[in-house]
Amino acid sequence: MKQDKISEAVVRRLPLYLRYLNELTISGVQTVSSQDLGDKLDLNPAQIRKDLAYFGEFGRKGVGYNVHYLIEKIRQILKLDKILNVALVGTGNLGRALSNYSMYIRDNMKIVAVFDSDPSKYGTFINRLTVQPMNELSETVKRLDITIGIITVPATEAQNVADRFVEAGIRGILNFAPSVIKAPSGVRVHHADFTGELLSLAYYMDHEKS
Amino acid sequence: MKQDKISEAVVRRLPLYLRYLNELTISGVQTVSSQDLGDKLDLNPAQIRKDLAYFGEFGRKGVGYNVHYLIEKIRQILKLDKILNVALVGTGNLGRALSNYSMYIRDNMKIVAVFDSDPSKYGTFINRLTVQPMNELSETVKRLDITIGIITVPATEAQNVADRFVEAGIRGILNFAPSVIKAPSGVRVHHADFTGELLSLAYYMDHEKS
Repeated sequence: MKQDKISEAVVRRLPLYLRYLNELTISGVQTVSSQDLGDKLDLNPAQIRKDLAYFGEFGRKGVGYNVHYLIEKIRQILKLDKILNVALVGTGNLGRALSNYSMYIRDNMKIVAVFDSDPSKYGTFINRLTVQPMNELSETVKRLDITIGIITVPATEAQNVADRFVEAGIRGILNFAPSVIKAPSGVRVHHADFTGELLSLAYYMDHEKS
Repeated sequence: MKQDKISEAVVRRLPLYLRYLNELTISGVQTVSSQDLGDKLDLNPAQIRKDLAYFGEFGRKGVGYNVHYLIEKIRQILKLDKILNVALVGTGNLGRALSNYSMYIRDNMKIVAVFDSDPSKYGTFINRLTVQPMNELSETVKRLDITIGIITVPATEAQNVADRFVEAGIRGILNFAPSVIKAPSGVRVHHADFTGELLSLAYYMDHEKS
């Protein structure tokens, strides 16, 4: 299968499709049309058909897409057939919110270790995980086969945490701190910036109205 | 200026450029090349030049982009020249984290009211804002000229909150609940899903390595 050319925009929409498809299975719905998907997700049905066509022909005209099959395909494309272990550094409000987020388990991604640099936090519990000191990061990453790191520390500490992740062998970093961090090639960094989400939301609000 | 055709991917990158450019001004840097931007943001310099070319020619060969000018341009494109007021519903860990996020002020977006459906939260303070009951939403939205609503409630309550936002006249909704919500046309909904961020991160990790 040729997957090299999938654009970032498509990859970012797939989890949204997956979320809604999962809701459909819970409701017992077995087929869905691109029109239904488009209505529900506020996307153009033609765009959805185009996105899904990247991965081969799944939909049948007048019948729609088989929900289970589509879920399996998207999970396969996003490599959700294996479990990815995640470490989180920074146990403030945001870190706690993310740790408690129940979606992880369903999506085969799981926060398995949490760290903080504040000694008063060591040994406290978040979502059944013990908060560990940073000097245990490297050993824990190796022992638990952690491949993804989440940063929820203040902006000034983010690069330092990223460096520690890289040293420990982490291959993907999701940074929630409001600063730009850098990692060597081979380590993928995504900046999860809800300010950015707000800004792009404002952009589209204005451009829809005017 | 033709801005109708700007793709979602570009609009999502602009806030990231803005973030780094703001960091540069703080450091006193006055010009930046697409190469510098690319190195720092893990993006292809050609992609950056292409993105910025959408808005006219700003960079000069061998000199680079004027940082202040670029910031002004991006702020203008993203309509940051005016202040947008934001309401937030749901004062759990995530709601608290977002309320405290200092970036808002700089980006001319500000959470000016917070709401919860739990009576025990009424009258408590978050970031100097008093938590209000939901039945005050509509009046507050009008009084404070709030145009954007953030949802940080459990998935089961998200659609209900969205409906209340729409009734109150909100035009843009940023949903952090792990469920798909729907709004009438004219109201823009973005799903801020960090599970999606993690999934797309995992996708790229695999595709860079293999």
